[in-house]
Formats: sequence, C-alpha cells, structure tokens
Amino acid sequence: MNAIARLIRPRSIAVIGASADPGKTSGRPVSFLQKHGFAGEIYPVNPKVDRIGDLICYPDIAALPAVPDVGLVLLGAERAHVAVRELARRGAAAAIVLASGYAENGEEGGRRQHELLEAAGAMRILGPNTIGLVNLTDKIVLSASGALATDHLPAGPVGLVSQSGGILGALLSRAAARGIGLSKLISTSNEADLELSDFIEYLAADDATKVIALYVEAIRHPDRFREAVQKARQAGKPVVAFKIGRSEAGAQAAVSHTGALAGSDRMYDALFRQLGVIRARTFEELLDIPAALAAGRKLGGKRVAILTSTGGAGTIVSDSLGVAGFETPAPDAETAAQLRSLQSGFHANLDRNPIDLTLAGLQPEILRGAIRTLLASSSYDALIIIAGSSAVGTPALLADAIRDCLAMSDKPVIAYVSPHAPEVGAVLTARGVPAYTSAESCASALSGLLQAAESPPSDMATCAERQVDTSDLPTGSLDESKAKALFARFGIPAAAERIVETAAQAEAAARALGGRLVLKILSAEITHKSDIGGVAVNLTPETIGDRLTTMAIDVEAATGRRPRRFLVQAMVSGGTELILGLHRDPLGTAVLLGMGGVTAELFNDTTMRLLPPTGGLSRAEARAMLHDLITWPLLDGFRGRPKADVEALVSAIVDFSFMAAQLGDRLIEAEINPVFVLPEGQGVCAADGVVVLASAGG
Amino acid sequence: MNAIARLIRPRSIAVIGASADPGKTSGRPVSFLQKHGFAGEIYPVNPKVDRIGDLICYPDIAALPAVPDVGLVLLGAERAHVAVRELARRGAAAAIVLASGYAENGEEGGRRQHELLEAAGAMRILGPNTIGLVNLTDKIVLSASGALATDHLPAGPVGLVSQSGGILGALLSRAAARGIGLSKLISTSNEADLELSDFIEYLAADDATKVIALYVEAIRHPDRFREAVQKARQAGKPVVAFKIGRSEAGAQAAVSHTGALAGSDRMYDALFRQLGVIRARTFEELLDIPAALAAGRKLGGKRVAILTSTGGAGTIVSDSLGVAGFETPAPDAETAAQLRSLQSGFHANLDRNPIDLTLAGLQPEILRGAIRTLLASSSYDALIIIAGSSAVGTPALLADAIRDCLAMSDKPVIAYVSPHAPEVGAVLTARGVPAYTSAESCASALSGLLQAAESPPSDMATCAERQVDTSDLPTGSLDESKAKALFARFGIPAAAERIVETAAQAEAAARALGGRLVLKILSAEITHKSDIGGVAVNLTPETIGDRLTTMAIDVEAATGRRPRRFLVQAMVSGGTELILGLHRDPLGTAVLLGMGGVTAELFNDTTMRLLPPTGGLSRAEARAMLHDLITWPLLDGFRGRPKADVEALVSAIVDFSFMAAQLGDRLIEAEINPVFVLPEGQGVCAADGVVVLASAGG
Repeated sequence: MNAIARLIRPRSIAVIGASADPGKTSGRPVSFLQKHGFAGEIYPVNPKVDRIGDLICYPDIAALPAVPDVGLVLLGAERAHVAVRELARRGAAAAIVLASGYAENGEEGGRRQHELLEAAGAMRILGPNTIGLVNLTDKIVLSASGALATDHLPAGPVGLVSQSGGILGALLSRAAARGIGLSKLISTSNEADLELSDFIEYLAADDATKVIALYVEAIRHPDRFREAVQKARQAGKPVVAFKIGRSEAGAQAAVSHTGALAGSDRMYDALFRQLGVIRARTFEELLDIPAALAAGRKLGGKRVAILTSTGGAGTIVSDSLGVAGFETPAPDAETAAQLRSLQSGFHANLDRNPIDLTLAGLQPEILRGAIRTLLASSSYDALIIIAGSSAVGTPALLADAIRDCLAMSDKPVIAYVSPHAPEVGAVLTARGVPAYTSAESCASALSGLLQAAESPPSDMATCAERQVDTSDLPTGSLDESKAKALFARFGIPAAAERIVETAAQAEAAARALGGRLVLKILSAEITHKSDIGGVAVNLTPETIGDRLTTMAIDVEAATGRRPRRFLVQAMVSGGTELILGLHRDPLGTAVLLGMGGVTAELFNDTTMRLLPPTGGLSRAEARAMLHDLITWPLLDGFRGRPKADVEALVSAIVDFSFMAAQLGDRLIEAEINPVFVLPEGQGVCAADGVVVLASAGG
Repeated sequence: MNAIARLIRPRSIAVIGASADPGKTSGRPVSFLQKHGFAGEIYPVNPKVDRIGDLICYPDIAALPAVPDVGLVLLGAERAHVAVRELARRGAAAAIVLASGYAENGEEGGRRQHELLEAAGAMRILGPNTIGLVNLTDKIVLSASGALATDHLPAGPVGLVSQSGGILGALLSRAAARGIGLSKLISTSNEADLELSDFIEYLAADDATKVIALYVEAIRHPDRFREAVQKARQAGKPVVAFKIGRSEAGAQAAVSHTGALAGSDRMYDALFRQLGVIRARTFEELLDIPAALAAGRKLGGKRVAILTSTGGAGTIVSDSLGVAGFETPAPDAETAAQLRSLQSGFHANLDRNPIDLTLAGLQPEILRGAIRTLLASSSYDALIIIAGSSAVGTPALLADAIRDCLAMSDKPVIAYVSPHAPEVGAVLTARGVPAYTSAESCASALSGLLQAAESPPSDMATCAERQVDTSDLPTGSLDESKAKALFARFGIPAAAERIVETAAQAEAAARALGGRLVLKILSAEITHKSDIGGVAVNLTPETIGDRLTTMAIDVEAATGRRPRRFLVQAMVSGGTELILGLHRDPLGTAVLLGMGGVTAELFNDTTMRLLPPTGGLSRAEARAMLHDLITWPLLDGFRGRPKADVEALVSAIVDFSFMAAQLGDRLIEAEINPVFVLPEGQGVCAADGVVVLASAGG
C-alpha cells in the first residue's frame, strides 16, 4: 500500500493533542472515529491524561506501542511541526495537520509551512489548514468537522476533494440530508504536499468511487491535474468541478483564503472543457450533478418527459428545461394511446407534456403503467417525475412505483419535489432516483448527464509533429513586418507589402502592389499606431506620397520622433476581421480567437483553447473554436454574405498554435490583429501583428 | 365589507360536498378549518351524513340556518354549477370552486366554465380549478391542500397570489419550513371571475401584508394589473412576480395548463420593469426575495460586508455577489481597527472581506462587536452573516447576537447557512434575518432589495398631449415614401428623396440631391426590396441612370412584374444604424429599439417599452432604452467614434411612440429600418420604413 492509500484507509491512527472532552474540537476526532465505527487502532496522544474513554492515552509519539499509519495532528501552528517530525521519525505514512496560520496568512505563515514540510521529510502531509478527510466506504473519519456529529452519513459512489476545509462539512451534511451517498471526502486546503491531483488519481482507482466531485480554488499544477483527470476519464468516472472565482471578488477572496495564485476564470473554463470536466456553475450543482451521475444511467438526447399529478410544478420544470435547451415534446400517438389506456375520464391530459395524471396518479397501477410507458417510449430520452403534496403523505407510493420500473431501461429518471418534503427527496435519491427541489437543478443535472455522455475530448490528440527552423529568430519586440514574417514562417499568409522610407518609394511600391493601399509607420516600439496618426487607409498611388509626408509630421508631433520607415500594404477587402492571439496565465498558454470590429468587441465574442503539453491544437479543436463564436454565422453565409474560407482560418489557428508550442517561453507575446478571412477559396491574410520574443537562451 | 373582503375574512363558511372522512380530500377543508382555529360558523353540506365531527351537517344549501359569507364547493364539475346557483340564491358573497374540467380542458370545458359563471350571477367566483385560499393572518384556511396538514404555518407580512393551484401548497410548505411568515395565499387558477389584480388590490389595502408575491402564468387584463400594482406601490408595498414561460416550452405548458393566452416573455419583462415589479427569475426567488423584503430594511448601495467564521463559505458568497454586480470591499482602516480591537492573535484576518473571525467568532461578545462594527461602518450598505457548522450546535449564539444588534441600523442583514441546518435558517428568518442556503439566493435577495429601493418608475407619466392631424391618412400597406411621410408628420425626419420613373428622371433627381445616392424600387407590396435586387447604393448622377435600367430588369426577372416607380435617396453616411419598431401582443403595444447591422442582430441587441394606457413614452423612458442596449457605447464615443445625436434619437423614439398611441389599432404595423443617428447636432434620419394602416372605421 502506498502512502496515500494508507492515509485514506489506515489500520492505525495516532491523534496528537486529543482532548478527553468530546465537546471540545480537539475531543471530536477520537469520539467521531469510535462513533462511526473505525475498526483499527486509535492512539490518542496527550501528556495530560491517561485515558480517553476506554482508550489508553499516550504521553508522546515516541511512547506509541506501534507505528501509526496516520497521525492526526490537532496542535496549533506553533507546535504542529514538532509532532510532524516525530511522526516521520516513527515511520508514519502521513500526517494530517489541521492548524491554520500557514501560507494563507502571508509571509510569516509561508515560512512556517516550509518548516512543516521540512519536518515531514519523506512522510506525506495533508494540509495544513485542513479539516481532514472522511472515508465513508470504510467508516473512517479523520476530521474534527462538526458535520460528523450526525449519525446518518450514507456511503455511496461520489468521491469529493475540496480545496477548502470549511466546505467539507457543508458538503457532507448537505449530501447526507439529501440521501446522496459519498465514498471519500478529502480537504486538501493549503496543499503543502498532497494536492488535488493526488486524490483525483486515488479516486480514479478507487472501486467504491464512480463519480469525482471537486471544489477548486486554484489548480497549482495544471499538468498533473490534466493527467489525473485523464486517468479518471479512462476509468469511466466523470469529474465534476465547482471552481470559485467566477467574479473578481470571488477570485480575490479565494486567493486570500489559500494563498494560491489563481488563473483567470475563462482559462479554467477552457481547461475544464478540453479535459471533459463538467463544470458546476454553482455550489449547489456540485452535489446536484454528481447525484445524477451516481445513478449510473445514460442520457442519449434532449427529449424529456415530465410526469406529474399537479399542473403547476410540471410547468415550472418544463420552463426551466426549455431555458436550458432541453425539449419537452408531447407524447407520440402510440405513447399517448398507451397512457390513455391506463385510465378513463375526461380529466386525463395525456396528449401533452407535462403528462398530468391528476389525482389518478395516486393509484399505484396507473403510476407504474405511466412510468413504464414513458421509459419504453421512443419519444423520450429521460423522465422527470414530479412529487407533489400527495407524495408527502405517502412517500412510498412514488418510491415503490419507480423502483419497480427502473430496471427496464437505462434512461435517466430524476424527481422534482414540489412541496417542502426533504424525506421524500432523500428516499428517492437513495433508491436511485436523484431528487431535486429546484427546477434549475433538474436542468443542471440533465445537462451534466449530457456532458458526461459526450465522447472524450479530442484536444489532447496533437497533430503530426512539425518543426520550423527558428535558429535565426530575432529577439525583443518585432516590428509589424518582422512579426508577419514570423507568422508566415509558420504558415500564416500576410498581406502583400513593401517597406519604404520616402514619398517617392511609397508611390512606386503602391504602383507595384496595385489596388487600394494602406500606409502605416513601421516601428518595433509603437504598437498602437492608429492612436498617434500612424495609419491611413484607402490610398492610391496618386495620394500615398503626400499622405506619407503628413503622417510623418503627425507622428512626430505626437511622439516627438520623426518616423523613418513606413509600410505600404495592399488593402484587404471583402473579408471578415478576426483577432488571433496568445493568452498566458498560471494555468498555461492558450490560443485566443475573437471576432473583430467594435460591435463584437462590446459583446466580447472570444473563445480560448489551452495548448496541450506537447504540440499545437488539432484541426477539430480549431474548428470548434469557430463554432464557439456567437458571430460564427458571419463566417457561414449569414444574410446573404459570402461564406468565409473556414478551412484556411482553421489552418491559421492550428499554425498559430504550433508556433506558440514550438517557441514556448521564448514567445512572450503574439497577436494577429486583424487577421482577415476572405471568401471561400481565397484564404486568410494577416493584416497587422505584434510579437515579442525572449532571447533564445531564456 | 365588499365581496372580496367577505371571501378572505368570512364569518361563516358553507362546505358543499364535505366528507366526514378527514382522510379524503373532501374531508380536509372542514378538518383544516377547525385545526387551524377558524372562529366563525362552519356549515358542512352533505345529504348523506348528519354530523361531521361536532358540526351539524346540512342536506343542502337551502337548509343552511344562515347565509354563509363563502361557499367552498368540493363537488365535481358536473354538479358544481348547481351548488353555485344555490349559493348565489341564498346571497353568499363568493363561491370557491375546486373542481377541474373547465377552460383548461378545451372547448367543452370552456362551455362548462361559462355555465358556472352564469349560475353565479352577481356572486363572485374564485376558480374553478383552484386549490382555494389561506388567510394566515386570521387563521382561516379555505383549501384542500395537503400542505395544510402541518401544524406550523407562521403568519407574517408576505401576501401571495398564485395563478396555479398546485403551487400554493409548495409555497405554503416551503415558506413554513424556512420560517417565512405569510399573510394570505390565494390561488386564482382559471380566473373565471376573480383574478390576479383583484387580490393585488386587496393585499395593497391589507394591513397585515407588507410585500406582495405573485405566481403568474398569464396576465389576462394588463390595464387592471397596471392599476393594481400602482396601488400596491403607492401603499409602499413592493410586488415580486415569478412568471412562467421564460422558454417556449414553459409558455406552451402554461397555456395548456390554464387555457390563457400568454404574451411574449420579453413583453412581461418590459411591463414588470415599467411598473417597478421585481421579477423573480426562478421559483425559489419567489420566496427568496419577499423574505428579504419582509424584514423591512433598506438597501442603499452595493457594498456588502461578509462576516464569517469559516473561510470557504464566505468565498462562495463573495463570488456570487461579484457575479451579481455587488462589491465586497475590504474594511476601511477605522473599521479594521475596530474589528482588530475585539480580539488578539495572528489568526484574525480582519483587513479582508469576507471578514473571517475564525473560531473566535464563536464567542458572543466578539460576534456582537463585529456585527455592531460592520453595521456602523460607512464602508458597507449591507451585511451577510455566514452560519457555519458551529451554528448547528448552538443556533441561539448567532440568533441572539444578531437580535441584539439589529435595531441599531436599518441596513439589511441576511444570513447564509453553509451546512445543512434548516432549523438555524428558520430561526434566523423568523427573527428578522432572512436566511438562505445558496449564495445565488443571497445575491438575488440583495438585488431585490436594491430594486425595491429604486424610485418609483416614471414611465406612466405621459408627456404633454399632442395631436397630429391624421384625418387624411391612407389605408393598407404604404410604400416607403408614404411610410416616411407618416413618420415625418409625427416629427421624425427622413432622408431627402425624389420619386422617379425613368433613367433620365433619376439622373436629374441625383443632381438635385447631390452627393452619393441610393436607388430603390418603390412599391407598397414589396417590403424586402434587397432580396429581389431592388436596392443599389453608392451611386452618382453618372451611374444612376444605367443602374435603374438594370434594376428594372433584375426585379422583373425576380417578381415577374416590371417596377414602374423608383426612389432616389440621398445616401446617409457617418451615422449609426438602428431599428425602431412596434411590437403587439396580448399584453399591449410596445416600442422596440434595436441596434442595426448583422453583428448586433446576432446578439439580438434590442429593448422594448410598453406604451402607457394613454399617450406615448417619456423622454426619460426613451433615454433609458438607449442605455439598455449593450451596444450603447457605439453611440457614446466608443473607441474614438464621434458621439451620436442622442437627444435627436430620444425625440424620434418619443415621436414614434406618440404616433403608435394616437393611431392605436389603426396602426397594424410600423417599423423604421434603418433609422440613422448622426453625429451630435446632426439629428436622425429615417432611411427606410414599413407602415400598414387599417381603415379609420376599423
């Protein structure tokens, strides 16, 4: 058994600083271990008492009768490292350090955390600033969380890793109240040593875990996270993540809270999507979606039947499903006929959806018949059953009927509980029908099932290796012409251009290039040329010479320096402007694609993909980026516009990503703005660009 | 007392079709009336039994010893109208008809509903297809809802009207479980007679009600709704509405459910906003927001302090507040110093927000001190207190501390309960600190408070009357020139133009107009001119003649008819394109403003305002419409563009609205597309338009 396995399934546990008073926080762990039925050895350590309940209490770690698998350290930050050193010396697999006052508390705390890590040596550390871990599969609770005071903690297939300690208790108690069974809960908190990905990997291999749920504040090691999630996916286990920091305020609070450097929220979005991690948008969804996945049923489409005996609640659910993009079609003729055959009377509104059984739905045979009919119907991919007020009095009616029918199909069946009736929801969930009290949660649960059913993401399949000679690259900030030359080297064509210094040269260049022209100053320093009067468009050979002269004067007036070099460029027309750029942050490097133009800018119509660990983006990923844009129809023949050369644009995105991949950290900045995509068959054309290169040595 | 008051506070109630078995649905009402302490007379009516419990049971309505204020009719649809006729004959104020099988069930049901109404004569009807009403202020329950089986139904200031019957039980039981006190709940359902607005008016005048909450499926009488809401607002009572039908699926389900014709969801949005009705976006918010408003505290800004003893939950709340547009600034120096003075030790993270007291927060004096400090701090407009796992064991700690501090300020104080601890939330809510289990609910509650604090809407203040002479208006579909002439009559300028028939006339017109020109076919029938080659832009006097000839050929090829008349129009340049139109639906008539151009179209960047009952929109409303547009910056100097003539555009919107108001139903269709708004001081210019007019007689 490796150290993490010994940590999660220890045969013996030392509790350092255990109090004999179970009312105190430091008295809880021993009491909880016993209460929840830990079958191994417990060694309380406290020099002040001889016994804690029926257990011998040891004066120090050296006095322990055997080497504990785990040491649960309840001491404060000023003494915890001493206990950790002792535990390491005795050969414990891991220590759990609950104390706060480490990296989350600034520099001084950071030093303390470093000291703790040194004291541990080869022994593993969970924490510090953690609330510990709970292994419900094996009834082992290594935590002081007040949420463990409850008797009822249902074990089940959802494994949870949280980067916040306090959240563990909230998740534990909320899941228990809803009848959602958990396998393991681990609070990693400061992650001085063991971190998120260690436990994702553990849960990926854990037989008791079928679904992995994550509470994320900051992913400290993106590459390890990527690998761990891929292992989980390969093991057929969906991963659901709630990530704090959707807003600036939340991101800052999370940073203060754990001291970790967070990437931008949109980068997390991109990473999760590329890895097939299902993102919980709210804290509630972090239980809502895993609860649905835990039932192990597959959603094959978007058509949902809603079975109800009360009209209003069915309407609420139907409305939320519609908002979330699901369909609630009426029963087909055959299904409707089968439903009608179950009962008689004019009250039955069985040709609509929600399918309203009215009070007849309280008769078990009718309810069973309707569930069977809807599960068998080819019109539906899933079934939502509404539990109304009548279910409160007779919760077994619904639960029994559902139980009898579940096995006949693997379509998802979930429940919406309309009145306040937590016991009804918990019974249904525990019997394999995840129950929700909000219509939005029903929709989120189904959306989660849909994402889980999608084929594994393809982004990590890198294209064939390419290698462009970059031995002779310049360094520093490149001027526009050199930037475009670099893009061209990687396969992205640029507009035809000439570098000129005088009006006469400009005129000659204009004649050589033909058509309408753009004149720009050429400078490695000035990147916002138009702000200082350094760009003129729609010029002709006749006008370009004079324009160069006035431009030189304007730019000198604005900057104090007379520009020496200019670029004469063929003006691109009939294309659509986009922006192709690079975004770097702690999570990695991403390619950013955005629609150009002021209107699209106001809507921030952009999308991102992180580069895989090696190589660039695949054509499929690049194509998917285009479809992400809300303005994608502008490239696809919207309102009679010519279709754009999408394949050339896909090539440009892939080329740009390979440039970023090959140059790695040497490429400090890169942006093509705009890149024009021309009508089908006419390719793309980089019309301006920025590149900043580090020197090859670093 | 009027009939509605007698219905809601009856002194005597006849229960027609009452069963002696309280387990049956028809046995519930009498049992519930007694259980919840109705102090008046109850007259059960049932020919089959002599007594129900200790009450005399009467064989029929004629045999009743006195005239009941209300008859609660439990009979099915086939017999209910007979009882209703008898009740009317005896002089009852109102009958509540629970039976279904009426207008919600198609034509046959519609006839039955009409018959019921005829039977009632001057007596009022609640229902049919209703679950009845509950008056918690006076402990009178006129309903068969299973939710009334509970003993604990806290009375309080929230009055609820629901157009769905089944929902009443859900709201009642959910509110009770959360400690939210209700005054009256009325289910109007089919609204054969009494409807939503009747009860809004009642609640507006009801002393026990401070907040009015509505579950809306369809507003059948928009003008009455408008008046009723205005009365509520004048009485200082905020109105919160959850409206079903945000999606097509939901809208259809609602229509099937009640048989009412619904307006589009965006029209409801516009109506609610114009009336100052706070829209609950989810069913949960229909309790979340009223719970916050019921506390009666005022939110004066967006700066929120979050006080916690557990880090993770504070972060979740902070993040959701950020997403919802609230600010969570760190304490100012003075506030931080005061917080620090409450305790010692390096664990205190009191210079951040969330303000984390850690375990010290469990000491009552520290907790009280922190609450007092934050309520007094000029840095904050509201306070959110996090109840963590520790609050579960000692719920009174938090509740007492809060109670002691509430009176010192009228800033809103709400709570977020992190673990599963419903009793903690209910205690806090009942003591005036509305508690929530989701961070999104906290944000919704504060948003609701912010909306309630906004000054009453101004839209209903119509501008000065105007009257344009429309005695000589044409009828039917107008051609572009006539349409623009109509707009001009109401004050909206159009581009200069000439009507021509030949190439030579076009050339002459072009010279007269000057500048670049647009050529269009002129036809009252063809509205999509460009689709058939009937529009050419950027022409000169030199090119326009030939272009007219080819256009005539193209249009004839496309339509089979040679166009006879053309419009030569000065081409508008340097402006921003918008669309100004009319939208009609069952809720009323709205003016629609949208940004023009394909990109804005993809984002559907439009906004609407309903016309008030008389007159047009005010300048303030028109200006607010501009600010609604996400692309508003395009008119406001974004990225160096010239500022648009916003005042002229506001005038055009107001003029357009007055045209719609004055012409009323005669104006079947009207759209200016595009209207150009030019740079400041240069006005607006209608460049194309559609008008369809009915004949003056109808």
